[in-house]
Amino acid sequence: MRTDVTHFKLEIKDGIAHVALDRPERKNPLTFDSYAELRDWFRDLVYDDEVKAVVFNSNGGNFSSGGDVHDIIGPLTKMNMKELLNFTRMTGDLVKAMVNCGKPIIAAIDGICVGAGAIIAMASDLRIATPEAKVAFLFTRVGLAGCDMGACAILPRIIGQGRAAELLYTGRAMSAEEGHAWGFHNSLVDADGLEQAASDMAARIAAGPNFGHMMTKTMLAQEWSMSIEQAIEAEAQAQAICMQTGDFERAYNAFVAKEKPVFEGD
Amino acid sequence: MRTDVTHFKLEIKDGIAHVALDRPERKNPLTFDSYAELRDWFRDLVYDDEVKAVVFNSNGGNFSSGGDVHDIIGPLTKMNMKELLNFTRMTGDLVKAMVNCGKPIIAAIDGICVGAGAIIAMASDLRIATPEAKVAFLFTRVGLAGCDMGACAILPRIIGQGRAAELLYTGRAMSAEEGHAWGFHNSLVDADGLEQAASDMAARIAAGPNFGHMMTKTMLAQEWSMSIEQAIEAEAQAQAICMQTGDFERAYNAFVAKEKPVFEGD
Amino acid sequence: MRTDVTHFKLEIKDGIAHVALDRPERKNPLTFDSYAELRDWFRDLVYDDEVKAVVFNSNGGNFSSGGDVHDIIGPLTKMNMKELLNFTRMTGDLVKAMVNCGKPIIAAIDGICVGAGAIIAMASDLRIATPEAKVAFLFTRVGLAGCDMGACAILPRIIGQGRAAELLYTGRAMSAEEGHAWGFHNSLVDADGLEQAASDMAARIAAGPNFGHMMTKTMLAQEWSMSIEQAIEAEAQAQAICMQTGDFERAYNAFVAKEKPVFEGD
Repeated sequence: MRTDVTHFKLEIKDGIAHVALDRPERKNPLTFDSYAELRDWFRDLVYDDEVKAVVFNSNGGNFSSGGDVHDIIGPLTKMNMKELLNFTRMTGDLVKAMVNCGKPIIAAIDGICVGAGAIIAMASDLRIATPEAKVAFLFTRVGLAGCDMGACAILPRIIGQGRAAELLYTGRAMSAEEGHAWGFHNSLVDADGLEQAASDMAARIAAGPNFGHMMTKTMLAQEWSMSIEQAIEAEAQAQAICMQTGDFERAYNAFVAKEKPVFEGD
Repeated sequence: MRTDVTHFKLEIKDGIAHVALDRPERKNPLTFDSYAELRDWFRDLVYDDEVKAVVFNSNGGNFSSGGDVHDIIGPLTKMNMKELLNFTRMTGDLVKAMVNCGKPIIAAIDGICVGAGAIIAMASDLRIATPEAKVAFLFTRVGLAGCDMGACAILPRIIGQGRAAELLYTGRAMSAEEGHAWGFHNSLVDADGLEQAASDMAARIAAGPNFGHMMTKTMLAQEWSMSIEQAIEAEAQAQAICMQTGDFERAYNAFVAKEKPVFEGD
Repeated sequence: MRTDVTHFKLEIKDGIAHVALDRPERKNPLTFDSYAELRDWFRDLVYDDEVKAVVFNSNGGNFSSGGDVHDIIGPLTKMNMKELLNFTRMTGDLVKAMVNCGKPIIAAIDGICVGAGAIIAMASDLRIATPEAKVAFLFTRVGLAGCDMGACAILPRIIGQGRAAELLYTGRAMSAEEGHAWGFHNSLVDADGLEQAASDMAARIAAGPNFGHMMTKTMLAQEWSMSIEQAIEAEAQAQAICMQTGDFERAYNAFVAKEKPVFEGD
């Protein structure tokens, strides 16, 4: 797995990739370079067996301030349509790459988590936040629409259509308490314990069965717009595939032997 | 914008259209005429730039008692299939017109909000209610199904499939507290402050960026049944369009000048 | 209606079918035989007018322990792909049969409700649980994926995408309080009152209008992946059909006569 990244922080340890945006003194904005490098890194991740789960960490008390006003928004105001579409597709491709990477992603959210930062949190599979986390889809504040990187499709499925509409029209911050009550955050922990809580969840998932987790992640996205009947058939096929993995047999053998199963990922 | 309406109340002020059903002594029922006139008015709204947001108010302490039993249900029991389908399509067309009007709609809900009244609230973008608001999808009480004007598709996306099923099968009232906890109501305020709270929210949205809000509303509906990948591509296109508006540049210039942006809607 | 079932418990009384898995000493596991018989019974149910609602009961303090490890998982580890797909399609067919049976299903959940048991609860229309109910989608614990019998499509629509992802990746139990707060359980009642509460809800629904309820259930599934516009047209047709039933006229006549309507189901 590539670890020679230059535009974001990356550490891989015990099968878990710890990712964070850099430049904490500016609350970890995204730049053209970090968008592209994150997209490429998540695209490669699908072929990597060493990494079993990803933690997207906060850094210096903040998750991300989103697209940098000077480095990104300024140049965008000068671009023609072809260039703009290249940009919005690149940012969308980051979300697609996260959704399709085959590994569960846990966002560990402290402090500011806004704009594209809120999108990265939304596009993760699970979210653990501190009471200080402020998540805002503030595209409307910069004169744009709430439909950025999949927000109008994904956010309503996480917190409900009415709450999502309010956040997207007003750009207001969702408090940590709201986020937890609404199902955006899976749990809240103090800032002291945030990295550990996210790492613990990642370790629990990384313990496997990782082929199964990959398939769960795949099907959560794949069945998004299927009918119920199509989804059930798709799952019949997907689960039958999983039943031919060694991990299924390992779990059964461990159960019979009254032991804890050790999964191997195939 | 047409203001010569005769079957509902309409006032346009500061870019906000205040709409309410009439006949408060009968708790503001819908009639064949008010359905049709509302449908036509919301259809015209898409071409209007003067109105930037809509508040659907309560009137005399109630939002709406829905389709009038004497004026609507009685005649329906005498109709043939062609006439019935004309009616159900007309009512559905009101919801379609609300969804497609391009302007955010805020429902200000006090007291009785049932039947087609509950549908109008559901089809709005945001909902502010008083503690006395009672919302009931009571089609089942008049011998019909819960699938009225899009309820089986839209209500589950707002409050979840299980809660929606209960309300649609039983026709029971959702209390204001339930509605708030479940994400139907965005907030609860006392009856005294209801109109003001709804107007404040409308003013906040009407301040713009209104092209962006139109696109947010469009995409919230447009992506309803897309795959994640399709939705992300659709948003890349929609947001690139928004990046060529003047409001995007105005927001950037205001940020650089450390001023509050003034949006102009194009 | 067939009542000569041998692999699960069945009692039909006052228009309500009371179903429960058997073998409470093993917490009511599913077997190849009970899967198949339940599937066939729910498939036949669509043609039956005697049964107006179904209660899926707990039995001896537990709902179901899911697919039996010895009777089901052991044999599955020995099967080839054709046999595995036959099995996963059979289990999926049970969910399809429940969704398409035309009668509202109420799950009365006490104690253990895991694996395929959790799926049966999820595939029911309404859920009433005791504070002791533990619902776990624990496929991951046996080395498989969370995509079982439609879970990746249906569970997110009931409790939200983020919460569903956590339950499906970790296999952890959802407590009764969580289930209620998240919209999985419609209500919580003490174990003493569970059967009565479920029967009361079933009786309320069985009182009709049963043609309407059948159509509500049909459309809740039918509109799953439609666009908003398609859903509204589909409901215009479905509700127009319901307006030609006698129950619609009966409700109107009862209203005019200031009486309570007595529905007849046609």
